[in-house]
Amino acid sequence: MNTIGLAVSTVIFALRPHPATGRPVLSIPLVRRTRDPFEGLWALPGGWVDPAESLATSAGRTLVETTGVRPSYLEQLYTFGEPGRSPGDRVVSVVYWALVRPEQIGERTDPAFDAENVRWFVADDVPHLAFDHDEVVAYALWRLRTKVEYSAIAQGLLGSTFTLSELRQVHEAVLDRELDPANFRRQVEASGTIVATGERVKGGRHRPPRLYRFDTSASLVDNGPLGDDAPVPLSGELL
Amino acid sequence: MNTIGLAVSTVIFALRPHPATGRPVLSIPLVRRTRDPFEGLWALPGGWVDPAESLATSAGRTLVETTGVRPSYLEQLYTFGEPGRSPGDRVVSVVYWALVRPEQIGERTDPAFDAENVRWFVADDVPHLAFDHDEVVAYALWRLRTKVEYSAIAQGLLGSTFTLSELRQVHEAVLDRELDPANFRRQVEASGTIVATGERVKGGRHRPPRLYRFDTSASLVDNGPLGDDAPVPLSGELL
Repeated sequence: MNTIGLAVSTVIFALRPHPATGRPVLSIPLVRRTRDPFEGLWALPGGWVDPAESLATSAGRTLVETTGVRPSYLEQLYTFGEPGRSPGDRVVSVVYWALVRPEQIGERTDPAFDAENVRWFVADDVPHLAFDHDEVVAYALWRLRTKVEYSAIAQGLLGSTFTLSELRQVHEAVLDRELDPANFRRQVEASGTIVATGERVKGGRHRPPRLYRFDTSASLVDNGPLGDDAPVPLSGELL
Repeated sequence: MNTIGLAVSTVIFALRPHPATGRPVLSIPLVRRTRDPFEGLWALPGGWVDPAESLATSAGRTLVETTGVRPSYLEQLYTFGEPGRSPGDRVVSVVYWALVRPEQIGERTDPAFDAENVRWFVADDVPHLAFDHDEVVAYALWRLRTKVEYSAIAQGLLGSTFTLSELRQVHEAVLDRELDPANFRRQVEASGTIVATGERVKGGRHRPPRLYRFDTSASLVDNGPLGDDAPVPLSGELL
């Protein structure tokens, strides 16, 4: 045995309006540290692993406790363990990640919830973070942008059905640039990767937009024989 | 802080002759446990993380100490941490993996080396292992067979240049079935993924086989901004 602290941290991506432009951009929730080390700096949500919990369960519990965000499941991203990453005792962090849809972002109103010290940030524009979390966020963004299929990203961020306009916003957020709507429509329709559901957005418009869906599954990582990681636990109920 | 033991384990793949057929097959080194828990069962090489070492350095050190195998570098595979995976105190294991070429497999002759309790096994035919190492080996084999390019596997197992026959043996070992040599040659030449070096195998034959190489790099996983994991340390020198 050894005296190493084992922690979990979580990188959660959602599409949220950019505070300046209003366009949907990849955003992550961060938690401001209220004690040392790194008091006052922002950090990824997380905490210590409870010896009785699986790693994914600890990640989900600490995520819900600190931010109120509840993804349908978490996937393991990478384990960060360089000796100098936390002052004092050695701490190793198993990092989980997930994509969430707007309805999975709860508004916490219970008195224990510290709304002052939780905030969504544009993922490409976070302040200098505590520990090695700058490196963790950069790695998660790189993995998302280079190793995950757009179809999985769109399903994770949008849900099972979506309009072409919503799908274009996902591509724009991942690419971090605007796309021409007409060109985008032609390319997506030619690619054959999406299927019209035959339904349209419900609402009062004369011709509401069509709804589409993907055929594929939505995991960030195919873990094969390991199966899916644990769903985020139901403790710490959203209000 | 919490009382969780942090360990590393390593899955090393090499091509070795099958003990029955003599054909090269994917093989892994295992270490027989000489104490509880699981005394007498075989397990992946590994050990406790030293608080002063990086995770990859601990994995490399324990690998060299127990088996004498020294890959040029190790890559992180996955962190296994289910609460019941080890009896007694909770233990979480960060698992590393690598491919090695024959010359990276040292023969240990120092008195401290326990050759009796180290052995190479056919990766598809290991005995029931200690801890959750059955699951770890199954996951590593699945990842290698479904998520890694053949070019990276071949470079890891063969080195930078190789004959067509050696390349076919790699494909046969990964697929776990024999391939027709003439068909294989046609397919590989048509794919354009390998390049003739202009050299031939050195030796006394009238027309020794041509040597080929790949253009791509040989990582099992592209870790982007994280870069390569640490090379295996030089302590525990091979004799």
